[in-house]
Amino acid sequence: MTPRSDLPSLNPGERLLAGPGPSNVEPRVLEAMQKPMLSHLDPDLHDILLELVDFQRQVYKATDESALVFPHQATGSSGMETGLQNLLEPGDTAIVANTGFFGNRIAKMAKRTGANVIEVTRDFGQIVPNEELLAALDQNPDARLVAVVHAETSTGVRHPVQELGAELRRRGGDTLLFVDCVTSLGAQPVEFDDWGIDFAYSCTQKALAAPPGMSPLAISGRALERVAARKNPVPFTFDLDLLRRYWIERPVTYHHTAPILHIYALYEALRGALEEGLEHRFQRHTDAGGHFQREIKSRGFELLADPEYQLAQLTAVRVPDGVDGKEVQTRFLREHGIEVGGGLGPDAPPIWRVGLMGYNARQEAADRVLQAFDAVLSDQKSLASTA
Amino acid sequence: MTPRSDLPSLNPGERLLAGPGPSNVEPRVLEAMQKPMLSHLDPDLHDILLELVDFQRQVYKATDESALVFPHQATGSSGMETGLQNLLEPGDTAIVANTGFFGNRIAKMAKRTGANVIEVTRDFGQIVPNEELLAALDQNPDARLVAVVHAETSTGVRHPVQELGAELRRRGGDTLLFVDCVTSLGAQPVEFDDWGIDFAYSCTQKALAAPPGMSPLAISGRALERVAARKNPVPFTFDLDLLRRYWIERPVTYHHTAPILHIYALYEALRGALEEGLEHRFQRHTDAGGHFQREIKSRGFELLADPEYQLAQLTAVRVPDGVDGKEVQTRFLREHGIEVGGGLGPDAPPIWRVGLMGYNARQEAADRVLQAFDAVLSDQKSLASTA
Repeated sequence: MTPRSDLPSLNPGERLLAGPGPSNVEPRVLEAMQKPMLSHLDPDLHDILLELVDFQRQVYKATDESALVFPHQATGSSGMETGLQNLLEPGDTAIVANTGFFGNRIAKMAKRTGANVIEVTRDFGQIVPNEELLAALDQNPDARLVAVVHAETSTGVRHPVQELGAELRRRGGDTLLFVDCVTSLGAQPVEFDDWGIDFAYSCTQKALAAPPGMSPLAISGRALERVAARKNPVPFTFDLDLLRRYWIERPVTYHHTAPILHIYALYEALRGALEEGLEHRFQRHTDAGGHFQREIKSRGFELLADPEYQLAQLTAVRVPDGVDGKEVQTRFLREHGIEVGGGLGPDAPPIWRVGLMGYNARQEAADRVLQAFDAVLSDQKSLASTA
Repeated sequence: MTPRSDLPSLNPGERLLAGPGPSNVEPRVLEAMQKPMLSHLDPDLHDILLELVDFQRQVYKATDESALVFPHQATGSSGMETGLQNLLEPGDTAIVANTGFFGNRIAKMAKRTGANVIEVTRDFGQIVPNEELLAALDQNPDARLVAVVHAETSTGVRHPVQELGAELRRRGGDTLLFVDCVTSLGAQPVEFDDWGIDFAYSCTQKALAAPPGMSPLAISGRALERVAARKNPVPFTFDLDLLRRYWIERPVTYHHTAPILHIYALYEALRGALEEGLEHRFQRHTDAGGHFQREIKSRGFELLADPEYQLAQLTAVRVPDGVDGKEVQTRFLREHGIEVGGGLGPDAPPIWRVGLMGYNARQEAADRVLQAFDAVLSDQKSLASTA
């Protein structure tokens, strides 16, 4: 094969990533990815890994030493599957709150393990009430886990995880609490130890403002005991015992070649979150999202989520009747360099999803999105009629 | 939690990564990772994905349209598992050539699927002769696959894959050819279509000179037919049907948030390999490795691999009697900023592993490693006695 000189160069355009994620990477995180690359077996990398784990424990509030905390080497859905593949075996029962794309994904992914999956559903925009999950548990007291999505990315709804954890703990059973924190970690409080969470996973590319590519995990001591008592092996990629030996208990048991530059990115992102202070960071998300929501409602738009459970960091805005939501997204992208999301999956109602997360959780970013709404939708007669 | 200002900053040292991988990232690849980040659902990203797939097809010589070609979202071992989880079901038979750490890993990983694994073994440094693999196939004509490691990273040995593929094709059976190309792709010829490979996986962090984090895959049409006929579901993370719809057949079926900056890196790395010309790149690896091997042998060191199957890009050098190989590695790292590998796994003989791959496949890099050998080992009496 002769040398080629006609191959197109990589030339992506600038974007304000104000959809459901990824969000724009924080500059200090991008800078960290240009630092000299160590090998995964370098003793200095182990120091970095352990420091990162310490940062991650602080961000998850998972400081109980019996918990295993580390980032899995791929994106959030692989964190979800790491949990389900480890905690479920054929014939186990899982109770899953399904009120959006990601609750639905947990249910479907859990079925691949051979588990019996009980789905408790609600329409998009609502929560699945904890009472209904607990009623399902009453009927299935041997359920291995109850799974909820803390911040449902497809609808902008917050699940009351703290209350569910308190009730599960009060009952004192063996059922594990499995929580999707993909869109919550770094944007709102997540208290792994205090809420009694047993398995949590998140991502790097939303409120942590790093690029996509890793899934920060936290697994409780009692969940690890279940994993140790499994009858069937898990796939190698998800093997928590090997991963613990690789990440934590060196000298090395080699598992995989860690994505070093993503580790640098996550290190710097977590460090940044702690330097900012978690409460400050949460407030910044509350302020930016609150500003956007007030302003967009004042223009006559309606939000999808039950107001009591509306997330700050992600807002699902209903597409007014007669407006082509997809066309609006395209104009935002091509005329304003702004990405907002649409509905996710065939069951989603017509919505736009606006994320103000991580580095973008600022009023300036919210205002840029509002300006695009004003510019693109000012001539929409149908919108005027709803206002 | 109050803001913290006492958290250690990330401060990794400069390294010449001359071990078994990762190798140093090519500067143009690092630059690509600083380009504006698109979202995984951006229409412009789909153009980049498809262009990347076209580059990857050229590098694998997998241009037959029935083959599925794309990079999996995690490192090489996850590519290995993607293949095994898809191609094997409980009760299937797999024949695995095990003559090093990675052949052994394939065998162990395959067992997790419930398959019956027949291992054909040889000592570290030798190949498993194709005749023995074919004899195992004669005894197990229904074997689902025969697995070999094209370039065994733990020993520096090249398996004659072309000859095995030709014989399998001549026999005309249904047994699939499964090939680990982690250390070969980009360093030496890999001819997916012509050699009759059915499943190949590689990594990004060796001869392609990108950071670790993705696993370029190629799957033949007949392998895909087997996957489509499976009785049991595979884990979501490895679902080739969903991944094909996500990567290739957009409009989007959302699978995961792709690691965008790793996609940029792989795009640029593959583009660089094609611009250089694959034959030129292979020759560069041959020249740099050949230079190192001649020079290190001239100093009285012995190589582990059977000379007939010695890789150029990776050389396993026997640690002379009386020398503490680990201590030498530490001095290379601390006094010279050079990483070389040691033996991998408890069964490995005392060796150093020197990789000259990707951006480091140059005589200057080889000479830096040789200078470190001269400086650190010049006073080793035991070495002098072997020379």
